[in-house]
Amino acid sequence: MAEQCGPALRWDELPEGPVLVLLDQTRLPAEEVELVCTDVPALVTAIQSLAVRGAPLLGIAGAYGVALAAARGFDVANAADRLARARPTAVNLAYGVRRVEEAYRKAFACHGGDEDGAAAAAALAEAKALHREDADASERLSEHGSVLLEKLVPGGSLRLLTHCNTGVLVSGGRGTALGVVRAVHRAGRLRRLWVDETRPLLQGARLTAYEAAREGMPYSVLADNAAGALFAGGEVDAVLVGADRIAADGSVANKVGTYPLAVLARHHGVPFIVVAPVTTVDLTTETGAGIEVEQRPGQEVTEIPVGVRGGSVQAAGGGVLVAPVGAQAYNPAFDVTPPDLVTAIVTDGGVIAPVTAAAVAELCSASRKGTSRSSHGMMPD
Amino acid sequence: MAEQCGPALRWDELPEGPVLVLLDQTRLPAEEVELVCTDVPALVTAIQSLAVRGAPLLGIAGAYGVALAAARGFDVANAADRLARARPTAVNLAYGVRRVEEAYRKAFACHGGDEDGAAAAAALAEAKALHREDADASERLSEHGSVLLEKLVPGGSLRLLTHCNTGVLVSGGRGTALGVVRAVHRAGRLRRLWVDETRPLLQGARLTAYEAAREGMPYSVLADNAAGALFAGGEVDAVLVGADRIAADGSVANKVGTYPLAVLARHHGVPFIVVAPVTTVDLTTETGAGIEVEQRPGQEVTEIPVGVRGGSVQAAGGGVLVAPVGAQAYNPAFDVTPPDLVTAIVTDGGVIAPVTAAAVAELCSASRKGTSRSSHGMMPD
Repeated sequence: MAEQCGPALRWDELPEGPVLVLLDQTRLPAEEVELVCTDVPALVTAIQSLAVRGAPLLGIAGAYGVALAAARGFDVANAADRLARARPTAVNLAYGVRRVEEAYRKAFACHGGDEDGAAAAAALAEAKALHREDADASERLSEHGSVLLEKLVPGGSLRLLTHCNTGVLVSGGRGTALGVVRAVHRAGRLRRLWVDETRPLLQGARLTAYEAAREGMPYSVLADNAAGALFAGGEVDAVLVGADRIAADGSVANKVGTYPLAVLARHHGVPFIVVAPVTTVDLTTETGAGIEVEQRPGQEVTEIPVGVRGGSVQAAGGGVLVAPVGAQAYNPAFDVTPPDLVTAIVTDGGVIAPVTAAAVAELCSASRKGTSRSSHGMMPD
Repeated sequence: MAEQCGPALRWDELPEGPVLVLLDQTRLPAEEVELVCTDVPALVTAIQSLAVRGAPLLGIAGAYGVALAAARGFDVANAADRLARARPTAVNLAYGVRRVEEAYRKAFACHGGDEDGAAAAAALAEAKALHREDADASERLSEHGSVLLEKLVPGGSLRLLTHCNTGVLVSGGRGTALGVVRAVHRAGRLRRLWVDETRPLLQGARLTAYEAAREGMPYSVLADNAAGALFAGGEVDAVLVGADRIAADGSVANKVGTYPLAVLARHHGVPFIVVAPVTTVDLTTETGAGIEVEQRPGQEVTEIPVGVRGGSVQAAGGGVLVAPVGAQAYNPAFDVTPPDLVTAIVTDGGVIAPVTAAAVAELCSASRKGTSRSSHGMMPD
């Protein structure tokens, strides 16, 4: 009965009831520790602490969270509201939550309640469906991304730069940007993966490097601010990143530090490619200015989140203090890249290039009709 | 007989002989620990570990290092060679070393040896002179920088972004870029100082924030990659940074992460200002391509240098491992910003704007003749 979502998440049915088992991503790569959630508050805490993280995985986790509330007889509407609001920027979270809540409501209405567990079963079935769709989407992202790279940077091996973590740890399948990198690597075309460490929480150094090492990719970690020297030295063939929300105009909210890479890529004429499932597009958000960017605690910057216990300079948040006591910090979790800096958005429904509101609308419309598009369909020749 | 160089360095004459006392900057802000150097190898180690750091201070430390070798009867030529080669990028180090070595040699030749200690005394006098000149230069940098900022961003209070540490910790006086910030603050015009944490060694979070806090400045620390969101939000009025070497064409080598800030500043039409004494200009290096950029150990990126002892994930280098065991890292200590991205170079001899090879040459020539230039002298109106 267990449903495994890559290494990151597992739905498990124990004798005492179903649980959601998460790989605690704040402890990687030093330790592989599982968190067992038996209720929604525990899952909300895991989401807010980034134990479970990454746009597609947040959608899957939110979906299973609603299914968990239904299966354990909690107030599903309340659970869905708490989950949908746990983090504001990634649209996938609310999407997954609302979709499973809707399936539950329909079944509940149809059966006049949930005394036989049919509504809870419908919720779980919907969560599993969303999970499988994400895995399928990641397969298509890898294919479309590989074809696009061959077109943009023909022949030879590639030096790709990525930011944050967008691989199997955030997906029901291969991931988004890092899934494309893996496809390039498996095709024997990856010369080097440049891994931005991704301060403050080091998802690049800790998680992307962990995935790259397990895949046997040639990779190097770098301080985020060293990317400029790589571009200046002509060492980057393309930038690949994920997305937490894509507005109707093609603006991309993604992990903080993405926008400076887009500006550098433009300055150096290097393709800047966003890889995300169509579910990441939020047509109700018209422009980038409408995207709410989560501001996170300053302690994430002023303390190093190394999980050290017993250090001599341990700070209030449990990390190691690296700034004066009482230092203020500016710590947005995301930034927004305007569409004119994005060379292409690779989705499971096809590639958007150039990135315009019309192209975004057309792709979303085609995807909802179930029309398959080749990656060439929306590519300039 | 003690000669104090701000909080960072002190020449002290103890009964057993002279020593150079350094504030160990790798331990700040958690601890104020002094290192006592009685010979040149200890000083070289302190320079290479960044216990003593920052372009102007490296010049002063190198100068006193030669004086120390002379006073203690070591081989001065050998000491000078080792010191000058301790780190390759900052030109001030070799400048300070060679100048004191030259003073020693002249006195040695004049007296036919150093049996009476006259050559050692001449070396120490030259080191002290260089030290005082740096303090004087930093006063003029602050004045010229303040006037320039008033001209570029007239009226109102300023939000200034800086990178790395360029204050009293790296200078015989007030510092370079941070000295200008301090002058702005003391004039009541500083609305906020944005402090790039400056990975990998966190000189911004640890040292600039430490100085800002002691001065009572309004400041916020940020992950380097969050600067993009600040620019996009219109939250930066000017960028002020130091320099480790300025080539004859006006290219600026400075702490890694400087170049991406210059690209962002250009993209957003924000002034990008370099503050450095004339001694930082190296006319023998024609262009930025000729500047040797120090590559430092990957461990500085893959391990957090928090000085923690006894942590559960302690790594080979003594820090805390934040990447998989065996991860490679790309870790240049500096990057090079081309002159066309630099709005102005503020020196003690005046302001260079626009930054061209001719303007650099003219300023250096005027400075060597001792001609004082107003900051308006080389400013476009």
